[in-house]
Amino acid sequence: MLDKILNAQSVAIIGASKNETKRGYQTISTLLNEQYEGEIFPVNPKEARILGLKCYPRVADIPRAVDVALIATPAKTLPAILQDCGENGVSGAVVLAGGFAETGKDGKLLENEMLKVARKYNIRLIGPNTSGMLNLKSNLNLVGLKNAPSGNIGLLTQSGNMALTLITEAKLKSNKGFSYYVGVGNEADIKFHEYLEFFHNDSSTKAILMYVEGLQQGRKFLQQAYITSRIKPIILLKSGRSATGKKSAGSHTGALAGISEVAQGAFKRAGIIIIENSDELFPAAETLSSLPPIRNNRVAILADGGGHATIAADLLSDQGVELPELDNKTQEKLKKLLPAAASVPNPVDVAGGTDSDPSLFADCAKIILQDPKIGGLLIVGLFGGYGIRFAASLALKEEDAAHQMGKMVKKYKKPIVLHSLYNSEKPHSLDLLRYYDIPVYDSLDISCRCISVLAEHGHNLHAYHAKTKFVFDSKNKAKLKGRKIIDKVRSENRVALLEYEAKDLFRLHGVQVSKDKTAKTPEQAVALAKEFKCPVALKIVSPDIIHKSDAKGVLLNLKAEDEIQNGFKNIIASAKKYNPRADIRGILVSPMAEDGLEVIIGTKIDEQFGPVIMYGLGGIMVEILKDVSFRILPVSRRSAAQMLEETKSYPILNGVRGRQPYDKKALIKLIIICSEVIEAYPQIEEMDLNPVIIHKEGVSIVDARIILKSTGGLS
Amino acid sequence: MLDKILNAQSVAIIGASKNETKRGYQTISTLLNEQYEGEIFPVNPKEARILGLKCYPRVADIPRAVDVALIATPAKTLPAILQDCGENGVSGAVVLAGGFAETGKDGKLLENEMLKVARKYNIRLIGPNTSGMLNLKSNLNLVGLKNAPSGNIGLLTQSGNMALTLITEAKLKSNKGFSYYVGVGNEADIKFHEYLEFFHNDSSTKAILMYVEGLQQGRKFLQQAYITSRIKPIILLKSGRSATGKKSAGSHTGALAGISEVAQGAFKRAGIIIIENSDELFPAAETLSSLPPIRNNRVAILADGGGHATIAADLLSDQGVELPELDNKTQEKLKKLLPAAASVPNPVDVAGGTDSDPSLFADCAKIILQDPKIGGLLIVGLFGGYGIRFAASLALKEEDAAHQMGKMVKKYKKPIVLHSLYNSEKPHSLDLLRYYDIPVYDSLDISCRCISVLAEHGHNLHAYHAKTKFVFDSKNKAKLKGRKIIDKVRSENRVALLEYEAKDLFRLHGVQVSKDKTAKTPEQAVALAKEFKCPVALKIVSPDIIHKSDAKGVLLNLKAEDEIQNGFKNIIASAKKYNPRADIRGILVSPMAEDGLEVIIGTKIDEQFGPVIMYGLGGIMVEILKDVSFRILPVSRRSAAQMLEETKSYPILNGVRGRQPYDKKALIKLIIICSEVIEAYPQIEEMDLNPVIIHKEGVSIVDARIILKSTGGLS
Repeated sequence: MLDKILNAQSVAIIGASKNETKRGYQTISTLLNEQYEGEIFPVNPKEARILGLKCYPRVADIPRAVDVALIATPAKTLPAILQDCGENGVSGAVVLAGGFAETGKDGKLLENEMLKVARKYNIRLIGPNTSGMLNLKSNLNLVGLKNAPSGNIGLLTQSGNMALTLITEAKLKSNKGFSYYVGVGNEADIKFHEYLEFFHNDSSTKAILMYVEGLQQGRKFLQQAYITSRIKPIILLKSGRSATGKKSAGSHTGALAGISEVAQGAFKRAGIIIIENSDELFPAAETLSSLPPIRNNRVAILADGGGHATIAADLLSDQGVELPELDNKTQEKLKKLLPAAASVPNPVDVAGGTDSDPSLFADCAKIILQDPKIGGLLIVGLFGGYGIRFAASLALKEEDAAHQMGKMVKKYKKPIVLHSLYNSEKPHSLDLLRYYDIPVYDSLDISCRCISVLAEHGHNLHAYHAKTKFVFDSKNKAKLKGRKIIDKVRSENRVALLEYEAKDLFRLHGVQVSKDKTAKTPEQAVALAKEFKCPVALKIVSPDIIHKSDAKGVLLNLKAEDEIQNGFKNIIASAKKYNPRADIRGILVSPMAEDGLEVIIGTKIDEQFGPVIMYGLGGIMVEILKDVSFRILPVSRRSAAQMLEETKSYPILNGVRGRQPYDKKALIKLIIICSEVIEAYPQIEEMDLNPVIIHKEGVSIVDARIILKSTGGLS
Repeated sequence: MLDKILNAQSVAIIGASKNETKRGYQTISTLLNEQYEGEIFPVNPKEARILGLKCYPRVADIPRAVDVALIATPAKTLPAILQDCGENGVSGAVVLAGGFAETGKDGKLLENEMLKVARKYNIRLIGPNTSGMLNLKSNLNLVGLKNAPSGNIGLLTQSGNMALTLITEAKLKSNKGFSYYVGVGNEADIKFHEYLEFFHNDSSTKAILMYVEGLQQGRKFLQQAYITSRIKPIILLKSGRSATGKKSAGSHTGALAGISEVAQGAFKRAGIIIIENSDELFPAAETLSSLPPIRNNRVAILADGGGHATIAADLLSDQGVELPELDNKTQEKLKKLLPAAASVPNPVDVAGGTDSDPSLFADCAKIILQDPKIGGLLIVGLFGGYGIRFAASLALKEEDAAHQMGKMVKKYKKPIVLHSLYNSEKPHSLDLLRYYDIPVYDSLDISCRCISVLAEHGHNLHAYHAKTKFVFDSKNKAKLKGRKIIDKVRSENRVALLEYEAKDLFRLHGVQVSKDKTAKTPEQAVALAKEFKCPVALKIVSPDIIHKSDAKGVLLNLKAEDEIQNGFKNIIASAKKYNPRADIRGILVSPMAEDGLEVIIGTKIDEQFGPVIMYGLGGIMVEILKDVSFRILPVSRRSAAQMLEETKSYPILNGVRGRQPYDKKALIKLIIICSEVIEAYPQIEEMDLNPVIIHKEGVSIVDARIILKSTGGLS
């Protein structure tokens, strides 16, 4: 689909110009200079020829259907120009102009008008408000930027300057480059996930690098990322996190800026590598496009000085990478090679052992990579600089080591990343390492991050099957009786289920729910309490009273007959006072739940990502500490278990001070059932189980609230 | 004191050599090449002359007293060589050799032996296990490193490679440099705080840059840092945080590796700027040595593209820097200069307004710096590259802007930091900015960090008087009666105070403590309870039973006469069973404390920093969440208040859900009294107030435990 646009064989430049400062001139000049493989059609009613090419008054005048049009004219011209494009049969257009949704309401209207024309003629749009696009295989350069390095990284950004930053960095500091660059702009038509799908299928792209300020279709993006990250690493920097950052992002891309914490977690579960520091963005992509992943999260550090090793050990530990002691045999082999002062457990510090012969680095690296415990190696310090610092002849030894290490990585399928203080001096040995796809950085921080993304990607690949697809599968999940409950609510023009209706729904889906019954009279309530043989709670049943406590419509732990009778009467009286017109259907009599731990579970619909679920302990844990965890639905068993583990209060579930643990299995099952309920009944907007009591065995839903969407039917 | 060593007028090279690969040759050669201003005396019994200089068999043979000796011989030779040095009258020695405390017990013994000789002859030692020292004013280069850039940053590190890293970075990426470098090594003799004091007094040093793995005398370091940071910024990277990092640090510097969280906090309170990422270390020092601090934590961002502005806004927000909206007048002035699409609130995005004239950057910067709300400016994007990217003539406009901005910083005393994508292309305009002391970075992350350290330093200067000096002042703090209590405990060969003794001590210092009394018989207990007119707690009184609960020696909330009588008997019986030989002195009868919130306060002695205090809420807050805060003692009122604020549970003190707040003032006062008690009685090793109950008004110490040091007297 996007293939015809991103690999266009012909391009029309609308707004072509003879003025050298104009984009409509520069683009044609660049396409000619960089020897674009396809045909170029300048479009400008006032010119006959531009840079030697025949110029057409309108796109519609071009004698063949053009694959892609670069439109360099102002926003307001777009609807008419797309009309022309449609007449020609143009497949796609790159709309550079700003002045659309990012500027507010009027811009949004103009964007919609433009989209309408595009849809009519089946033209797909990149942008608007984009810096353009670039195909480095055919030199289709529709971006104001020359000499970008070609390579195997697909680049998607929502900021032209960030693209410039990354492309400049690639050119100056690596031998890697890009297959494509697309400035996603406002995402008016083509969305992030469609580009992702294109890169998924493009054989020249090995890794995908993204700078994102906001997503138009978050869930589809997750679904595609989940599939793509399995075969190609996706590296993403998400900005617009802070309040000011959000405003800043919104002011220039018009995106739904600000992706929630929830989404950050979901990105990780979709297998995306999230980068926080912009300095690490290109290096992470470079590393992931070059080296095998680390399968076991276990890394060794090889250093020729203590400080670097110590800092690297701290950083890798912070990033959750393990630095196990090397195998005894490995340590013995290293000891034989190195001076007595060397430290060999991990980090390995050669303690001057390489001063007279840096090819020893390769010998050490080989011994370390052969250790079955170790999944990857980080070398830190002066390698590459021995020839500069000590004696020129040592450079040859370094080059020998580089050749050996390069081949070693391929042989053992374990990565090496190198930090070198001498990187900026560009010694030949470091170029050799790069030739073998071993990246080299002069920053310790970046080198460590690169090793850790290899470990993260390895973990992602390993954990793939346990991950969530982010796809709803409602088939067979809904129960006939469940649908009837919801239909009844709808038929009464209600949006809120009554407590017993909500509980009935959960009972249908296999949750043990207390056998509450509705009493119409005080006497019925007493009789029900006797039946239950335990203290009871009384709660008002009225479609007009959602917040029962506010109406003093709840009494707990009633035992004696007169308590129950008086309670019944008091609740009715309070409810009538609270809302004289309330349709009161009776009083729900519930057996009091046994002792246990109070938790809360809720679901709601996120604007960008759809249904999400929240779990947390009740009381101060949620009130003061906001100690909750979130997931985008649906959730797997593993995800549900992780939700519990992610909360700080998790140890309490396991039993504090030797107390018996609570029934985590039942709680996990309940979270999964909540997920299923949301899948089964797309009419649900929001759900609140508060509190749920977890016992030593089983759980009790003490109160349940389900709110339906105000409109919408069965899907 | 250190002056004579660090500014030595004469130097002996012990282990001088004709072998070019030896340090004893290289050092002399470097001193000669770099034209060291003082006299050089090679020492080697086997040579007559080295590099044209007369060689002496022993230091003692040198006809004048030498200021400093560089000792390049192995560890085991040190005691004898220092003996020679002593005979010559050497003031200081730089001991390069490793093989001392960092290698274990034998090394530690050798280190002590060496120290003994040094002390005998009053020789101060740098190292051992150091890469050396370097004075860039007199070119006294005793480190294996050439062409280090000279400047105003004092450098102290515990890793030769980190020194090399920082010096290389300075040389390649800035026009700044160093006044001195000292490799601190094992800190066997001269400690960190002594170097700090030297830099404090050295007029050529404007900022102090440190890489620390462990400190020998933490408290003295804090005391000196507190004084020095007020006049010169101190920038510190502390490594060895992780378990592996600690091991790695310990294995090569022999330092007491691993500085606790407590200390990290104390560093900040001493006014030290702590850096986490090694890439930010030199830039932070460069910036702080060049620019005025930001007084109000409020910064503006000026950008020529959205992506950079958004990322910068996120990073600065993460770092706690405020990005207020610019004043309305400021915004209006900017609007007049910039195109309609520009965003002016903050970040300011010029939206192409500078494309044809980048000198507009200076105009915008001037308007922004004139805004009284704004304390500093971060410029991000392409400045410096307009001449490269658009048209060569624009370079001159950029240079004009650089001149203007350079002078602006001096005029308004507000800093500008610049991020430029084109920094590595070295355009003249960026060199100009550096000439005016405006640092330029090609990393957004680093630029943001540099602006934020200026804000942090400004805050430190501002908050100076409210800070802790880390100095104990026990004068007049101890009470005569308090000393008597402690003397009595000591005289009985006890280390633990009895509960009532501990409470008496607190009462002496003005804490309202319950009027507990000791009963000898059940009847006395009943009588006391009547006197208190409230329920009571009974607790065993025995110097042999410290953990009263373990001995079933505590009963709470007793009301009735028979409850109290039986309670008395049961406790005595349990205690005798628990420890038949226990000296039982009676039963403490305490009025039960009123309801309130349970907190705990404790003190202990940290190996590196001395007495520290801990505060936290009781219950799960401390058990599960470890939600506690620490301070090195003594604490000020402000520090005590911050201790409360730092805990996650702080909102509970303020009253949750509209409940009345607890008496924070009384709690703060109690923390200050604990601090005074520790100051007053240096015999105390450890103190535990657990629980303390905070009421709506006042606090109650329910149980108090004080343990004395096993030896030691009044200081």
